[in-house]
Amino acid sequence: MSLNTYGHLFRVTTWGESHGPALGATVDGCPPGVPIDEAALQVWMDKRKPGTSRYTTQRREADAVRILSGTYEGQTTGTPIQLMIENTDQRSKDYGDIAEKFRPGHADITYWQKYGIRDPRGGGRSSARETAARVAAGGVARAALAALAPGMKITGYMVQMGAKHIDRDRFDWDQIDKNPFWVPDAVAAEDWGTYLDGLRKDGQSVGAMIELCVSGAPAGLGAPVYGKLDTNLAAAMMSINAVKGVEIGEGMAAAGLTGTDNADEIFMGDDGHYFGSNHAGGILGGISTGQDIVLRFAVKPTSSILQTRRTITKSGEAAEIVTKGRHDPCVGIRAVPVAEAMAAAVMLDHLLIHRGQVGEGPRGTIG
Amino acid sequence: MSLNTYGHLFRVTTWGESHGPALGATVDGCPPGVPIDEAALQVWMDKRKPGTSRYTTQRREADAVRILSGTYEGQTTGTPIQLMIENTDQRSKDYGDIAEKFRPGHADITYWQKYGIRDPRGGGRSSARETAARVAAGGVARAALAALAPGMKITGYMVQMGAKHIDRDRFDWDQIDKNPFWVPDAVAAEDWGTYLDGLRKDGQSVGAMIELCVSGAPAGLGAPVYGKLDTNLAAAMMSINAVKGVEIGEGMAAAGLTGTDNADEIFMGDDGHYFGSNHAGGILGGISTGQDIVLRFAVKPTSSILQTRRTITKSGEAAEIVTKGRHDPCVGIRAVPVAEAMAAAVMLDHLLIHRGQVGEGPRGTIG
Amino acid sequence: MSLNTYGHLFRVTTWGESHGPALGATVDGCPPGVPIDEAALQVWMDKRKPGTSRYTTQRREADAVRILSGTYEGQTTGTPIQLMIENTDQRSKDYGDIAEKFRPGHADITYWQKYGIRDPRGGGRSSARETAARVAAGGVARAALAALAPGMKITGYMVQMGAKHIDRDRFDWDQIDKNPFWVPDAVAAEDWGTYLDGLRKDGQSVGAMIELCVSGAPAGLGAPVYGKLDTNLAAAMMSINAVKGVEIGEGMAAAGLTGTDNADEIFMGDDGHYFGSNHAGGILGGISTGQDIVLRFAVKPTSSILQTRRTITKSGEAAEIVTKGRHDPCVGIRAVPVAEAMAAAVMLDHLLIHRGQVGEGPRGTIG
Amino acid sequence: MSLNTYGHLFRVTTWGESHGPALGATVDGCPPGVPIDEAALQVWMDKRKPGTSRYTTQRREADAVRILSGTYEGQTTGTPIQLMIENTDQRSKDYGDIAEKFRPGHADITYWQKYGIRDPRGGGRSSARETAARVAAGGVARAALAALAPGMKITGYMVQMGAKHIDRDRFDWDQIDKNPFWVPDAVAAEDWGTYLDGLRKDGQSVGAMIELCVSGAPAGLGAPVYGKLDTNLAAAMMSINAVKGVEIGEGMAAAGLTGTDNADEIFMGDDGHYFGSNHAGGILGGISTGQDIVLRFAVKPTSSILQTRRTITKSGEAAEIVTKGRHDPCVGIRAVPVAEAMAAAVMLDHLLIHRGQVGEGPRGTIG
Repeated sequence: MSLNTYGHLFRVTTWGESHGPALGATVDGCPPGVPIDEAALQVWMDKRKPGTSRYTTQRREADAVRILSGTYEGQTTGTPIQLMIENTDQRSKDYGDIAEKFRPGHADITYWQKYGIRDPRGGGRSSARETAARVAAGGVARAALAALAPGMKITGYMVQMGAKHIDRDRFDWDQIDKNPFWVPDAVAAEDWGTYLDGLRKDGQSVGAMIELCVSGAPAGLGAPVYGKLDTNLAAAMMSINAVKGVEIGEGMAAAGLTGTDNADEIFMGDDGHYFGSNHAGGILGGISTGQDIVLRFAVKPTSSILQTRRTITKSGEAAEIVTKGRHDPCVGIRAVPVAEAMAAAVMLDHLLIHRGQVGEGPRGTIG
Repeated sequence: MSLNTYGHLFRVTTWGESHGPALGATVDGCPPGVPIDEAALQVWMDKRKPGTSRYTTQRREADAVRILSGTYEGQTTGTPIQLMIENTDQRSKDYGDIAEKFRPGHADITYWQKYGIRDPRGGGRSSARETAARVAAGGVARAALAALAPGMKITGYMVQMGAKHIDRDRFDWDQIDKNPFWVPDAVAAEDWGTYLDGLRKDGQSVGAMIELCVSGAPAGLGAPVYGKLDTNLAAAMMSINAVKGVEIGEGMAAAGLTGTDNADEIFMGDDGHYFGSNHAGGILGGISTGQDIVLRFAVKPTSSILQTRRTITKSGEAAEIVTKGRHDPCVGIRAVPVAEAMAAAVMLDHLLIHRGQVGEGPRGTIG
Repeated sequence: MSLNTYGHLFRVTTWGESHGPALGATVDGCPPGVPIDEAALQVWMDKRKPGTSRYTTQRREADAVRILSGTYEGQTTGTPIQLMIENTDQRSKDYGDIAEKFRPGHADITYWQKYGIRDPRGGGRSSARETAARVAAGGVARAALAALAPGMKITGYMVQMGAKHIDRDRFDWDQIDKNPFWVPDAVAAEDWGTYLDGLRKDGQSVGAMIELCVSGAPAGLGAPVYGKLDTNLAAAMMSINAVKGVEIGEGMAAAGLTGTDNADEIFMGDDGHYFGSNHAGGILGGISTGQDIVLRFAVKPTSSILQTRRTITKSGEAAEIVTKGRHDPCVGIRAVPVAEAMAAAVMLDHLLIHRGQVGEGPRGTIG
Repeated sequence: MSLNTYGHLFRVTTWGESHGPALGATVDGCPPGVPIDEAALQVWMDKRKPGTSRYTTQRREADAVRILSGTYEGQTTGTPIQLMIENTDQRSKDYGDIAEKFRPGHADITYWQKYGIRDPRGGGRSSARETAARVAAGGVARAALAALAPGMKITGYMVQMGAKHIDRDRFDWDQIDKNPFWVPDAVAAEDWGTYLDGLRKDGQSVGAMIELCVSGAPAGLGAPVYGKLDTNLAAAMMSINAVKGVEIGEGMAAAGLTGTDNADEIFMGDDGHYFGSNHAGGILGGISTGQDIVLRFAVKPTSSILQTRRTITKSGEAAEIVTKGRHDPCVGIRAVPVAEAMAAAVMLDHLLIHRGQVGEGPRGTIG
């Protein structure tokens, strides 16, 4: 069942609400002997942490992750790893109003209808704060991948914010870590900052498109027919708050192509891979080809805005609402490290499944 | 693990290869007492069946589904339902060549690399023929939904083929069943026929975009945080052969919107729902709102084309290949009934989960 | 996969080691609206807590359980419930010796061989301390059962300790809570106390047999063919540390019976049930009959004893070991509340599954 | 959920009823490249097949297993393997009476209460005929084990039938295949034949105790805390029809032992293992020690007997019933190959899990 769980052999269950005492992730199935400590996880936590620039929510959280189990003397032991992050800046008073009114674009109304009870403080379980736990778990996955598949690299970056797109001709991997938007285009970074400042002052928000690249993945990962690598990656992205679409390789544009345009010819390319192009996005038939795995996903604009919107109360009466509090003008920014964490978990999971069902490395050789 | 399985309480495992003696679906978890027989399933099978128009593969298969277990006197008994479809028109001789060469755009090379052995006849397990089993299982899901959620209606239709889009102003539900493309636009249907005839004569293929609408779903289905209704629907679509992207509601376009544009205001609308618009696509926080659930997915052009393409052999030598045999110029056409079947399975699964964990109907009332 | 998880719809994952900072249980799938708080859980924790009599380990743990998520204003919300118990009396110095030597009867050697790393402090993950987390999770299950199946009652009690058996003629439900052994026989309770005092002074230990009775379970729970109610109950008991056997109804003795002796005739009995006897132990074909569900399981004697035993070191050298530290002369005593907790989780799980797949209550009526 | 499924990475779902057209097993997760064909499976099928001696049901079934998918040119391909066995000797007329009356000791009444519909012909899904599918799946598991763990040997044998026990001093592995009871004691075999002849003539039945030994299993298989090797083996046995109890190593007798008697000392034994005895039954802390894994389970006497028993009808009226038809006087006989098949599946599953999560072989070395 596992409705708050992802993964098969490497399994992550997240728990916790925005304004509860803590949240975290229960990680089961990590291989033993992986070097890991809290400092190593904190690097990833800090990447997602709120309040690091003026473009993200001003909630102040240290997001300090504690490892409560599953390691001994700095190594994983093969037993469940409990990762806990205490909430320190909840300010419940900010949220008194929304216990009665449903915020447009939020899960308030659906949680209410489903469960008949909900924790309204900061969105409770439906808050993007839950993704902190995913990032912690993703840190464990990264550590295991570093040991088992040392060449694999997982990098997310923003390619669109609202109406603004990056210029692919200016694409520069080294820029990604140098601006608050994880954008691989220095010109765009500056332009987008000005743009977002304006939106923030207006209490407005904007959507974003994130691209994710997994390089160095071995060929042969993935499992037809339903547990495909692309299916699992897509599900991982769609499970992130506010994500409304996901695509692999050519993606939605594939609908407009012919077979000649789309199918990648096979020959020994300059990059040492067997393909002349990568329209497939590194996955064929649900199994990795050894090329870069490339996907994109769309994040909707933050629903909490300072505009007056129509809504209703629990008793069905018409009302108006302005969502105050501390929010992200572009929640897509913080989705970047979350997506990386999810991708790391999926890649590790499929690496372990492959080892279990097939063995070390691909079985079929070419040449 | 369940790498050939989908669902939680309503679980479907498909099995079989394109040119083996048979293929099918093992369906576990269907409620008891659902009226079902082979004729009822055959209606859906016929919708997907090859060879029904000149626009799909000319392979001749009756696609007759047999129920081998799980029913008694025309009703489900609560035990596993085995659905078997015999392959009758395999023509293995057509495929002798591709045992040695990898077809571009196909899973030949990845299956080989992963497993070191593959059934090359017709693509083996990676053939779209596997989706016949999904349609059969979807027929069972539809029968159960008819009993448990009688107002729910699941309809797929094509909205784009290659560069050609429907005209939303001509959208007509009644047209969908009246043309071989399941397109809700009579003018487009005629135009696309001519277009596809040309591609077919050239041995070319083209991609497509399918839209799927689930109307009449009750509010409250879905389960945060990972087993979300949209996550599960997206995974279901992504698991279909040749699908490269999926989106819900505004989808990829949400990246370009502001919060004001995107978040649906809440008030009693003319359609009896609590929302003034449906940018969300009927799902908020992973849970159904009661509005129409609307998603789209892109199907890449058939990779088997009559063009000469570069490839390599198993021994690594450069080669050329022209994929003869009987293929679909637009495999997206037959993805329509497959997507409906997958959606039916997901909707039923979440209905059963909701019944189990929450009870009959939504728990929270409004007003 | 879920190797540290049990349950299907009601899922419990435990985490934590004997001497880590904390241990706990992640509980997913609990219905919403169940009244629960830490005090209610503590009642069950106190029943298992070490140091409550001279017959159990003298380790001093408050075993205070904290609810970190999944409840709001005293009710479950349908989101994951995190239950944490801090370890306060670890005394790591007691265990320095056993990092190098494997203790006979313990999992030291198998953990080492499997993982190549282990937390030796107090047995790490293999310690019976892990069962504290199960008891906490069982408390949540009991609260949900109280709401959904108010007549159900789950009671464990000891029926054998070493060579000593209870006298069934003296069976008295009211005695169970009145002695430190949970034994329904006042005479046995006194006798066993003297017996165990002697063993304790000798640094010796002894095995035990526990019986568990679930009364008031509705007919119809369970799911053929593999997810049977008896299969799941048996697995739950076998998963408890030191359990070496489990039986339902006549159990192992059924091997010695004839069909006439064993099959329960069906007629309206005096107790309002449809059976004249209960050799089946309340389960037929994996599904509850509505009668009492009765099972027994054997707990081996504590392996940590003050006797000198032969062993080897990690480097393979012969050695001797005497396991000092604070241990239970009869670990079976504390298995009683653990078994109750596991049974509560299994019963709730099957109740939810039944609701999901079949609906409220049994579907087939008699008469 | 998987209520008709067992296993994690090696997953088996059985389907089919006693008197339907066919039954079978869907096997997912078998490693690729395992040599397998129908003849190899048939060896195991024939061992369980009815009508092979006068001591088992006279139903005549060829039990011919067909492989419908998942193999190519005599090897597994890594895709799902469908195993189908057609029913050829159903004789539905034999079972007309029991559609209205519930047979004592059978699942008729519980299936009815749970589902409100049941296939009464031969017990439908609850018939021991379902175990034919398990034996077929076990044949696949054995083939994979032969490739991956060639020294592993799985042998079941009967040690008790009714009041009659084997004499352990006469234990002879070579006798097991030489008598219809799989009993390792030539004297007992002859005696039990006479005994069972008498029971058969009286229309009576009797219970049995089966012992199962897995030799040659590597150390390190199994996974604490819940997915333990002993838990999974116990669940596998308990899921077999008519099994009422299961025990590992000393089993139920452990309740009567002291710690000194029970805990196996550790030193290099004559058999090349690290233990001086095997009270543990080859498993410590849920993980294999490398010694023989030894378990026993009790099978109740066949409930279908020629004695007149009291029962009720669906309408609640008192009635009498004599179960005619073709039945086994000791259903435990045919449980032997079924148990072997289940054990093979569990051992393979844990071997694959270990490979996935830990890697090839144990990680920790001694000496």
